[in-house]
Amino acid sequence: MAFRAAVAGASGYAGGEVLRLLLAHPEAETGALTANSNAGERLGALQPHLRPLADRVLEPTTVEALAGHDVVFLALPHGQSAAVAEQLGSDVLIVDCGADFRLQDAAAWEKFYGSPHAGTWPYGLPELPGAREALRGSRRVAVPGCYPTAVSLALFPAYAAGLVEPEAVIVAASGTSGAGKAPKPHLLGSEVMGSMSPYGVGGGHRHTPEMIQNLSAVAGRPVTVSFTPTLAPMPRGILATCSAKAAPGVSEGLLRETYAKALDAEPFVHLLPEGQWPSTAAVYGSNCALLQVAHDESAGRVVVISAIDNLTKGTAGGAVQSMNIALGLPEELGLSTTGVAP
Amino acid sequence: MAFRAAVAGASGYAGGEVLRLLLAHPEAETGALTANSNAGERLGALQPHLRPLADRVLEPTTVEALAGHDVVFLALPHGQSAAVAEQLGSDVLIVDCGADFRLQDAAAWEKFYGSPHAGTWPYGLPELPGAREALRGSRRVAVPGCYPTAVSLALFPAYAAGLVEPEAVIVAASGTSGAGKAPKPHLLGSEVMGSMSPYGVGGGHRHTPEMIQNLSAVAGRPVTVSFTPTLAPMPRGILATCSAKAAPGVSEGLLRETYAKALDAEPFVHLLPEGQWPSTAAVYGSNCALLQVAHDESAGRVVVISAIDNLTKGTAGGAVQSMNIALGLPEELGLSTTGVAP
Amino acid sequence: MAFRAAVAGASGYAGGEVLRLLLAHPEAETGALTANSNAGERLGALQPHLRPLADRVLEPTTVEALAGHDVVFLALPHGQSAAVAEQLGSDVLIVDCGADFRLQDAAAWEKFYGSPHAGTWPYGLPELPGAREALRGSRRVAVPGCYPTAVSLALFPAYAAGLVEPEAVIVAASGTSGAGKAPKPHLLGSEVMGSMSPYGVGGGHRHTPEMIQNLSAVAGRPVTVSFTPTLAPMPRGILATCSAKAAPGVSEGLLRETYAKALDAEPFVHLLPEGQWPSTAAVYGSNCALLQVAHDESAGRVVVISAIDNLTKGTAGGAVQSMNIALGLPEELGLSTTGVAP
Amino acid sequence: MAFRAAVAGASGYAGGEVLRLLLAHPEAETGALTANSNAGERLGALQPHLRPLADRVLEPTTVEALAGHDVVFLALPHGQSAAVAEQLGSDVLIVDCGADFRLQDAAAWEKFYGSPHAGTWPYGLPELPGAREALRGSRRVAVPGCYPTAVSLALFPAYAAGLVEPEAVIVAASGTSGAGKAPKPHLLGSEVMGSMSPYGVGGGHRHTPEMIQNLSAVAGRPVTVSFTPTLAPMPRGILATCSAKAAPGVSEGLLRETYAKALDAEPFVHLLPEGQWPSTAAVYGSNCALLQVAHDESAGRVVVISAIDNLTKGTAGGAVQSMNIALGLPEELGLSTTGVAP
Repeated sequence: MAFRAAVAGASGYAGGEVLRLLLAHPEAETGALTANSNAGERLGALQPHLRPLADRVLEPTTVEALAGHDVVFLALPHGQSAAVAEQLGSDVLIVDCGADFRLQDAAAWEKFYGSPHAGTWPYGLPELPGAREALRGSRRVAVPGCYPTAVSLALFPAYAAGLVEPEAVIVAASGTSGAGKAPKPHLLGSEVMGSMSPYGVGGGHRHTPEMIQNLSAVAGRPVTVSFTPTLAPMPRGILATCSAKAAPGVSEGLLRETYAKALDAEPFVHLLPEGQWPSTAAVYGSNCALLQVAHDESAGRVVVISAIDNLTKGTAGGAVQSMNIALGLPEELGLSTTGVAP
Repeated sequence: MAFRAAVAGASGYAGGEVLRLLLAHPEAETGALTANSNAGERLGALQPHLRPLADRVLEPTTVEALAGHDVVFLALPHGQSAAVAEQLGSDVLIVDCGADFRLQDAAAWEKFYGSPHAGTWPYGLPELPGAREALRGSRRVAVPGCYPTAVSLALFPAYAAGLVEPEAVIVAASGTSGAGKAPKPHLLGSEVMGSMSPYGVGGGHRHTPEMIQNLSAVAGRPVTVSFTPTLAPMPRGILATCSAKAAPGVSEGLLRETYAKALDAEPFVHLLPEGQWPSTAAVYGSNCALLQVAHDESAGRVVVISAIDNLTKGTAGGAVQSMNIALGLPEELGLSTTGVAP
Repeated sequence: MAFRAAVAGASGYAGGEVLRLLLAHPEAETGALTANSNAGERLGALQPHLRPLADRVLEPTTVEALAGHDVVFLALPHGQSAAVAEQLGSDVLIVDCGADFRLQDAAAWEKFYGSPHAGTWPYGLPELPGAREALRGSRRVAVPGCYPTAVSLALFPAYAAGLVEPEAVIVAASGTSGAGKAPKPHLLGSEVMGSMSPYGVGGGHRHTPEMIQNLSAVAGRPVTVSFTPTLAPMPRGILATCSAKAAPGVSEGLLRETYAKALDAEPFVHLLPEGQWPSTAAVYGSNCALLQVAHDESAGRVVVISAIDNLTKGTAGGAVQSMNIALGLPEELGLSTTGVAP
Repeated sequence: MAFRAAVAGASGYAGGEVLRLLLAHPEAETGALTANSNAGERLGALQPHLRPLADRVLEPTTVEALAGHDVVFLALPHGQSAAVAEQLGSDVLIVDCGADFRLQDAAAWEKFYGSPHAGTWPYGLPELPGAREALRGSRRVAVPGCYPTAVSLALFPAYAAGLVEPEAVIVAASGTSGAGKAPKPHLLGSEVMGSMSPYGVGGGHRHTPEMIQNLSAVAGRPVTVSFTPTLAPMPRGILATCSAKAAPGVSEGLLRETYAKALDAEPFVHLLPEGQWPSTAAVYGSNCALLQVAHDESAGRVVVISAIDNLTKGTAGGAVQSMNIALGLPEELGLSTTGVAP
């Protein structure tokens, strides 16, 4: 079942990664590539790593350009997806890499994004309970945020099994591509290399309500999340350190057993063998999430570490995986679990 | 008051940083430089950045070589300091950059280091309550670990004022120099660049009991610490994200006020203005610790971020600062609060 | 035409990259994986990015283990390939990623490698004149060195067309994976990050005679090469700056035309449009070499820049490309021109 | 002899480094700090590493703000220095870190900078023959470009002694701070990390005529320069690989002897012992240039490698060194030859 896909926002990091994965997808044909300020330029000048598409010219992002495709990936600034989606009609599969349709709670959306809530689409994290069912055959997919992907995959088995208390503490380090391609002084190489720095500390990061939504749904009760994101001197990757108080009776053995069982059938989420820890290098460019768990008896906490590539499993890989499900294709088609290392 | 200082372990990272700081210290004269496997080599071949000492030749680490100095800095593998210290006599100021004399609890030492406890020396973190008094005139100094420095400075004002509950959660990212200069596969540049990875997860890191010791002393009751260290792709720096449940009645205002007051007179620990966050780049090569605090009301937690240079304030700078106090010199002498950036 | 391939040296960087590419090759089945000191370990512990092979256990490198495959990739230390090859017989395709069979000149081999010359195999740089013919159907392939790949691709069109004088000056920057995975102090992340440094200056690098061999053959007369390799703070990639005096009558137009024509049919070597320059990021993990040319009229020199991934086109990608030719498969099969960026 | 210094352009990288060095200078008092778009901001928000000046507020760059100082450092965009200098009068020492007054040849200026030539000031590279004499007592200093500093120091002894032919080939790698702090897409951390890329290839870089000027003056005849700058994934440092055909009769011994003699009395430029090579890490934050030489007999070329910190010896350190000479202070005052490593 071949399909033709357009990408809106093809000059950015998310759009570029969608294209990288579509180039490796055996059923995909790459249709329109659109951009805003970069319309009219050769893709090769903006994304020189996408050699097979180097001579393609970016069109302006219009409904006309995006119409007539089987799948449209939106990698647009927040707030622009709803208008485009409405005009494209309900037959085309729209995969929104932005935040617009991720949250169910309109009040949370308005608090964190400061604009009216556009609605809620099936959530593109297939590993969460019930997610695959909602995605199957859907013509709308809301791709999760990169941090919520790393954190939800790390903690959902523990919350589903009731192994931890409902107050999660998350500290995550992200590569700089998560901050996008718009040039800002603090994202300059000179500032970033050799430096770790936090941002959005104290509950202000927009991905917090998304984590709360996912973990609360799995836990079946309200979960609070203390989330501190940090910027790390690397282009890609998220390493999330997630912990919560252990529920009574938890042991390292029970923990491992629970995770092993929960992830057993998952093609893209793996519990590492005892003694081995995830690293972002091991998932560079791959659609894998690697996990490891520990029970810190002295501190009475369960600690789960997850590593993903923020652009692959955290954005474009998750998008393609969900697209496969929505289209009825094999979920793993065109997606690799092999990273590029060292 | 000029003094002559020897450095045992001059070919490693800690020893090299001690030398870098002694070269900038107006009262220091650099005496014997010793090493083990590198004895006989020119320092310039091993530490090419220490130009003024390039032609000095390393001697074997013996009591004879170290004798006859006013100050001896030990940057030796764990477990070797006691024997050297005993033979050097009680008149010479010995500043131990290793772990041997940091812990008061012999059982904790034996659990984490697997060898008999050598004893406890005055603890070289002058900012902790009572520490300056113990250091003044002392002829023995135990330099704190790099992580405990970052974490204790971040949390002591909150624990001293009773603003947080006694269960701390710490996630810290360290530059690779913290892992030393002995070549191991996972520390190769090819492995490290572009990668974040955790280690010692679940309470196993040797710096954990040191943090517990410091924070419990300040809090006046037992504090538990869930500590996750991570290796970041940068040569230097620690960014510590420290949080604990807020005590009843805590507000952002009270928090800022408490920290401002606690740090007001400190020359090397600074609370940043609201809205500005610490970064390791800002303290590169400086003896500063930069802090910022936040009260996450939704999650009910106090979050404190600290940034230090693990080799400067976290090791050699803290060592020189404590040495100044022990010798009766001005505490800031020869130490800079200016970092090298970008 | 499916084939079964063994990899000797599967725990190193070259062997790991061969495996990464074989996993993406539609006709490849991965057979024996062998190692020396790492024999007995899970591949997942040593190459965690190769998830599909994580549970494979490394065997000792013996002829028994390597026998019975259609293809055997050797990624062994210099000097070990001949003995293995002899015993495997002449029917199996042996692709040697080491240096043993690259040089035609036994004296040059002995001068630079200090051991007896093992012989010369068909040279696996298909883009060089005559190379494809020699590779077709061959059961032996000598994979070129990474620097000679970058440099020969950059300069062969100019030398073939007589556009430059026979004295080439090359300065190339390489990522650290080119130095291998054996831990050495100068390759530690702490030493490498933030640093550029040269090595093998003044003609001492072992890749020099290989460049001379290739360029002299193309030029039809002896070419001298002044080669300075430098180590760059990145895991992968080579950027080679290659220049030589322009022959009389050379112009920028003639230069571009010559390169465009020479590379027109090449699937993996591309001249970039005017004004765009190669970067190693654009070829990260891809089998492409990107080139750009300039005629510096003031200095009277032709300058050619090439960028490759040292592990892909510079080692394992070149190996698979040559293997495809030797086996009679389509040359591009299983190889990608898409890089992983940013 | 205490002096008061103003810095125009204090929010940029060059201005920040001037301030870092002035803070360590025993005779310097820091006066006005000015900026353009950042006027009105706290320095601490823009240059958080300059803790002692964190609460200073930037003034707009006006003659009024800069008047009344003993020394004024200009770190302004090209073309703006002349107007400021004229109005400040001839008594104040003006040290221009920009390019405006570096070139003697008005035609070369106009060709490379596209604006009228402002004039020529004493050139602030004290190591060049005659430079100290011109600087002594001068009230105007043109600080050299960073690349010309690295290259001129590398080659002046060889050209002064007639050891090389007048056609130099230079390939240099620079850290990203050399490109300044104005945010541009290709300078983003995501683009820079893991990547080497060239720019200004083929004679187009503005530092080329400055190298030609310096080397021709030393050689006593016209020297041509083929210069290829590359951007390296590190914040600071320049590694320059400089070569030229060896003159008849040159040997490695003669070469070493010539350099040793030429640099013998230099406090900031050092020939390394045989077998040791310069690295940018060894001069991080120091005012040193480290050199090594080689005679490549096969290729018939002399190769000289130099490493500097582009912001220290390459800009602000050279500026302070020249200021010391102009003011009649000891040349080394306040400048360190100790780098910050690892």
